[in-house]
Amino acid sequence: MLVSDYILNFLVKKKVKKVFLITGGAITFVVDAFSRNKKISYIDCGHEQGAAMMADAYSRLGPNFCATMVTSGPGATNLLTGIACSWFDSIPGIHICGQVNTHELSGAVKSTKNVRQVGFQETDIVSMAKPITKFAYRIKSEKEIPYILEKAYHISTSGRPGPVLIDVPMNFQRKIINLKKLKKFIPPKRNLKIGIDRKINHVYDLLKKSKRPIFILGGGIEISKSKNKLNKLFANYKIPYVTTWSGKDCCFYGQKNYVGTIGVYGSRAANFAVQNSDFILNIGSRLDTRITGGTPSTFGRKAKIVSVDIDKNELNKKRGLKNFLKLNYDVGDFLDKFNLKTKYNCNINWLKNCEDWNKNYPNVLENWRKQKKFTNPYYFVEVLSEELNNKDIIIADDGAHLTWAVQAFKIKKGQRFFSAFGNSPMGYALPASIGASIVKNKKRIICIDGDGSLQINLQELHTLVNNKLPIKIFILNNNGYGIIKQFQELYLSKRFEASGKGVSNPNFEKIANAFGINYSVIKNHYKMRNKLKKIINSNKPEFVNVLIKPDQKIIPKLQFGKPIEDLSPLLSRKEYLKNMFIEEISSDSNLIEIN
Amino acid sequence: MLVSDYILNFLVKKKVKKVFLITGGAITFVVDAFSRNKKISYIDCGHEQGAAMMADAYSRLGPNFCATMVTSGPGATNLLTGIACSWFDSIPGIHICGQVNTHELSGAVKSTKNVRQVGFQETDIVSMAKPITKFAYRIKSEKEIPYILEKAYHISTSGRPGPVLIDVPMNFQRKIINLKKLKKFIPPKRNLKIGIDRKINHVYDLLKKSKRPIFILGGGIEISKSKNKLNKLFANYKIPYVTTWSGKDCCFYGQKNYVGTIGVYGSRAANFAVQNSDFILNIGSRLDTRITGGTPSTFGRKAKIVSVDIDKNELNKKRGLKNFLKLNYDVGDFLDKFNLKTKYNCNINWLKNCEDWNKNYPNVLENWRKQKKFTNPYYFVEVLSEELNNKDIIIADDGAHLTWAVQAFKIKKGQRFFSAFGNSPMGYALPASIGASIVKNKKRIICIDGDGSLQINLQELHTLVNNKLPIKIFILNNNGYGIIKQFQELYLSKRFEASGKGVSNPNFEKIANAFGINYSVIKNHYKMRNKLKKIINSNKPEFVNVLIKPDQKIIPKLQFGKPIEDLSPLLSRKEYLKNMFIEEISSDSNLIEIN
Repeated sequence: MLVSDYILNFLVKKKVKKVFLITGGAITFVVDAFSRNKKISYIDCGHEQGAAMMADAYSRLGPNFCATMVTSGPGATNLLTGIACSWFDSIPGIHICGQVNTHELSGAVKSTKNVRQVGFQETDIVSMAKPITKFAYRIKSEKEIPYILEKAYHISTSGRPGPVLIDVPMNFQRKIINLKKLKKFIPPKRNLKIGIDRKINHVYDLLKKSKRPIFILGGGIEISKSKNKLNKLFANYKIPYVTTWSGKDCCFYGQKNYVGTIGVYGSRAANFAVQNSDFILNIGSRLDTRITGGTPSTFGRKAKIVSVDIDKNELNKKRGLKNFLKLNYDVGDFLDKFNLKTKYNCNINWLKNCEDWNKNYPNVLENWRKQKKFTNPYYFVEVLSEELNNKDIIIADDGAHLTWAVQAFKIKKGQRFFSAFGNSPMGYALPASIGASIVKNKKRIICIDGDGSLQINLQELHTLVNNKLPIKIFILNNNGYGIIKQFQELYLSKRFEASGKGVSNPNFEKIANAFGINYSVIKNHYKMRNKLKKIINSNKPEFVNVLIKPDQKIIPKLQFGKPIEDLSPLLSRKEYLKNMFIEEISSDSNLIEIN
Repeated sequence: MLVSDYILNFLVKKKVKKVFLITGGAITFVVDAFSRNKKISYIDCGHEQGAAMMADAYSRLGPNFCATMVTSGPGATNLLTGIACSWFDSIPGIHICGQVNTHELSGAVKSTKNVRQVGFQETDIVSMAKPITKFAYRIKSEKEIPYILEKAYHISTSGRPGPVLIDVPMNFQRKIINLKKLKKFIPPKRNLKIGIDRKINHVYDLLKKSKRPIFILGGGIEISKSKNKLNKLFANYKIPYVTTWSGKDCCFYGQKNYVGTIGVYGSRAANFAVQNSDFILNIGSRLDTRITGGTPSTFGRKAKIVSVDIDKNELNKKRGLKNFLKLNYDVGDFLDKFNLKTKYNCNINWLKNCEDWNKNYPNVLENWRKQKKFTNPYYFVEVLSEELNNKDIIIADDGAHLTWAVQAFKIKKGQRFFSAFGNSPMGYALPASIGASIVKNKKRIICIDGDGSLQINLQELHTLVNNKLPIKIFILNNNGYGIIKQFQELYLSKRFEASGKGVSNPNFEKIANAFGINYSVIKNHYKMRNKLKKIINSNKPEFVNVLIKPDQKIIPKLQFGKPIEDLSPLLSRKEYLKNMFIEEISSDSNLIEIN
C-alpha cells in the first residue's frame, strides 16, 4: 500500500471526512491519494491559516478529529496561528506537512547542518511547532508511518487534548509499505483513578459544610464530552453555578441556579456570587487571569477552592490563587463518581441571593435598548440570540465584539457558542464558521465578527461561497479596534494610535457583493428584529454590517488592580458593600466612595 | 526616557521611517510612542503576515533597515511566514513583539513552567522564531533594552544578514530608563580578511589557465551592496557571466557577455554555458538545488568551481558539488581586491559560443508571440518589460508565474527585480509591492502575481488603496496552481487534485472594484501593448487580469534526474551533443534519442 493511501485510510478510520488543505510541491503525492479514496475528500482553502482554523472548528463540533494538509515552508508556517488556537483550547487534530526529500534536508549530511536551507522551501517546521503542539515529529522512514500516526492520534486525543504535527518528506509519500511487517502502536492503558473516591468524599464533605457554595463550569466539560453528566449534576445538586467563557454553552440562559459568566468581562451577578462564596468547586477551568483578574489572590478569597483538571500543571500553578484541594482527574470521571453521592441542596437563601443578583444586575440595560443612534451591540446580540433556535452554532471572533457577544448572548439549550478563547486571534470566526458548517452538513452558522478581524482571513469568503455555506456573518462595526480604544481612553489620554487613527475599513458592501454574498446593514434599532428574522431564515450566506458607535464601551469591565466583583463603572461603595457578604475586602481602595 | 520612546528613537537612528504594524493589547504602549515622535510613523496593515512582507521589501530597497510591531500571541505568530522570507534571502530587519507582563509568563514562577499559557495571548514566540532568525530574544529587564537593540541590529546587519526578533513584555514598555547608566553594546571588530590576497591570486591564476571560464552572479552581490563594484568587474574582465534568480537584477538584458539565468528553470543558453565551462567563479550564490538540479554532482561537472560566500556553512556543504576553492569573504571585499588585478579577456571563441547560445535559444519563441487564444505569459512579460523604464521595481510572487516572469523579463539597467526567492510563499508580491512603494515615496511598483497567490494576502488591497499607492498588479491567471498542474501532468497522469479540481477563483473584477481599484483584462495579444502602456502610465493602482491558458507550461524546465543543460522539452540528442564541449556526460540516458 502506498504511504499516501495509508494516510488517508488512517484519517477515515479516525472519522475525518473532510481535510482542509492547500496543495503545493511537497504535498502533491499525499493529495493525489484523494483520487483513489471515496470516503474522504478535501476543502481547498484560501490560506493555510484558514485551513487550520476550519479544522479546529471541525474538531470542536465533529464526531472525533480533524486534519489539514499543506506543503513545506510557507505552507507549514502559515498554519501556526491556527494550530495555536487548538493548542490553547485543547482541541485535538493532526496537521500533515509535506517536506523536502530527506536527502535535501539540512543536516542530511553533517556538512549541511548549519545551512539555512538546502531543499527548496525547506523549513524546520517541527521545531517551530513544538511550543504549540503536543507532538511534532518528522518522519524518518516510511516504515514508521503507521506507528507514528497512531501514536500522534493517541497523544492528540488523550489526557488534555491538543494538536499534533507530522512532517512527511516527499520521498516517503510515494513509498510502498507492507503493513503486516510494521511495528504497531499500542496505546498505554489509562491511568488508574487512584484515590478518587477518597477525594470525592472530601469534596462532598466540604460542600456540605459550606454556607455559600458555588460551581464553576469550564471548558473541560466540553473537552471531556461530559455534557450529559453535567445534566445529572444539575439534577442532583441544587447549588448555584457560574461558567467561564469556554463553559458558557454548558448551560442555557434562564436555567435554574445559573448565575452567569465570571471574570474580567464577567457579569456583575456571577462575579458577586463567586466572590461571596465560601466553597468553589471548579470543574474544568484553568482559572486564568481573564477569570481571576490581575491579582489571583483576590479571586474567591473567602472560599475553599477545589479544582478538577486533567492537566496537573494547571492545578499546581502557584500564582496567588490557592487550590485547597486538587483533583487531577478527567472531568468526566469526576462527574461519574460525584453524581453517585446523595443528592444535596444548599441553603435556599444563598440560592435566592444569586437569583437576586441576576435580577438586579442584568447584562443588557433597558436604556441601551432605547438607544436611537447606532446599534447598541448588547441589545443587538440579545435580539439575535432570541431569534435563533436551539440547534444553532454561534462562533465569535475576538476583541470588543467577542466580549459584547459573550456578555449579552442568551444561550439556548443545545446551542454551541465558542471562539478560540485562549489564542484569541483576529480572523478566527470566519474560517471556523466554514469548518463548522462543513462538519454539520452545510448547516447555517452564526459568525459574530469585528470590522478589523474580518479582514485578516478575508480570502475565505470565497471558500464560503464556493462551498455554498449558509453562514450569517455579523460585523459589529465600530470602525477600529474597540477594545484597544477603550484601553487608550482609560490609560493613554485618548491617543488612539493605530486603533482609531491610521485605521480604516474597506467598503464592506462592495466586498460582500464582489464575493456574491447578500449584504445588509443594521444602522440602529429600527425594525432590527424583523431584519434579523429575514437574514437568519434565508438559506444563503449573509453579510450584515451592524453599525456600532465608534466609542462603544465594554460594560462592565474590570480595571487594573481591582478584584473581579468590583467591575467598572464602579458601583457606589454603599451598593458595593451591600452586595458583599464578606467583611474583609482585598483592597482599601474598594471602599473609597467614587460616585 | 520611556522605553517605548527609546525604541522609536533607536529605529529612527537606523533610518527606519515607517514601521509596519497592527496594534493589540500587548504592544499598545510602544505604539503610543508614535504620538510623540515626528521622525517616524506607521502603516496600519491588514494582517501581520502582510506587515512582515512589507517590511522585507522595505529593507531590500530602503536605505538601511526595517521594522514591524505586533502584539503577543497571534500577532507574533502571524509574522512567521514573512520573517522566513527575510531569513532565507538574507534580509536584515527587526520584529518587535509585545508580550504579556513578566509576572504573567509561563515559568515566571517555577510552578507554571509547563503550563500551556498563563497570561492572556501568551505564546513562546522566541522559541518559535529561533529557526528562522539570527537572534530571537525576550527582554529580561528594561535596563538591557538599549544593549539588546544594538546587539540585535549588529547581528541582523553584519556577516550574512537576516531578521531578528525581540519580545518585549508589557511591563518594560512603560518603564523609564536612564541611558547614561546602562551598558552599551560595542560591536566586535570585523574579521580581518586573512589570506584574501593569496587566495585571489590563486583564483586569478585558475582563471587565466582556463579555456571556458564563467562567472555566476548571485544574490550576495545585492546583499553586500556591491553593484558598483560589479560594474568594475565587467569593465576589467571580458568573461561570460550568468546569474541566479536572486542575481538577475545585477545585469541587464543585452548586456555584453551576459548569457542569462541558470538552473532548473534557467535559460538553455545560460545552462549550456555553465555546463560547458571549465572554470566557474561563483560570486555570492549558495548554489542551491534549484540552480544545480537534483543531482548537484552533475552541475559544472567539468569545471573547477570557486565560490565566494560570507557564510562558511554554504561553502562547506558537501552535497555532490565540490568547491575547488572556497573564499569565505564578503562579496564586496572580494570584488575590491579582485578588481585590482590586471585586466583579463578570455578566449574570444568562448565568448562567441555564449553569444551563439543566446541567439539560438531565446527565452521567448516567435510562435508564442503569434498565439491567438489566451495571452502567452512569456510574450506578455516580454512586452511588459519593454514598456517599463529603468527605474522600475518589479516584484513577482511564486510558482508558475514567477518562473514565467524570470524567464521572459528583459531587465533594464537600474531596475530592481525580485521575489522572496528562498521561502517562496504564495502571497508575497502584493504586500512586498506595498512596502516597496512606501520606501520609494509612493512610487509605482510592478507586481506580478498569480490567481492563487493573490488571495493569500487579499486584505492588503485595502492597505494599498488606503495609502494611495500606484501599484500595478498583473495576475497571470491560469485558473489554478500551474506549477503543480504541470507536475501532475508529468508524474500523476493528469490527476489535478487540489490544483485544478476543487480550486476556483473569485470574480477578480468585482473584487478590484470593491476595493476601488481600476480593473482591466488582457484576454489575448490583440492591442496588448497599447493596453499595457495605458495601465503602466496611469498614476493610480491598477488590477490587470491576464488570462493564460489553464494548461500553460513552464518552458523549458528540468525533469528529475537530468543535468541542468538537458532541459525539457528535450532537444534531439544530435542537437544536444552539438552544444556540449565536454565529451563525458553524467548520464547515458542523455544520449538516448527521444525525438
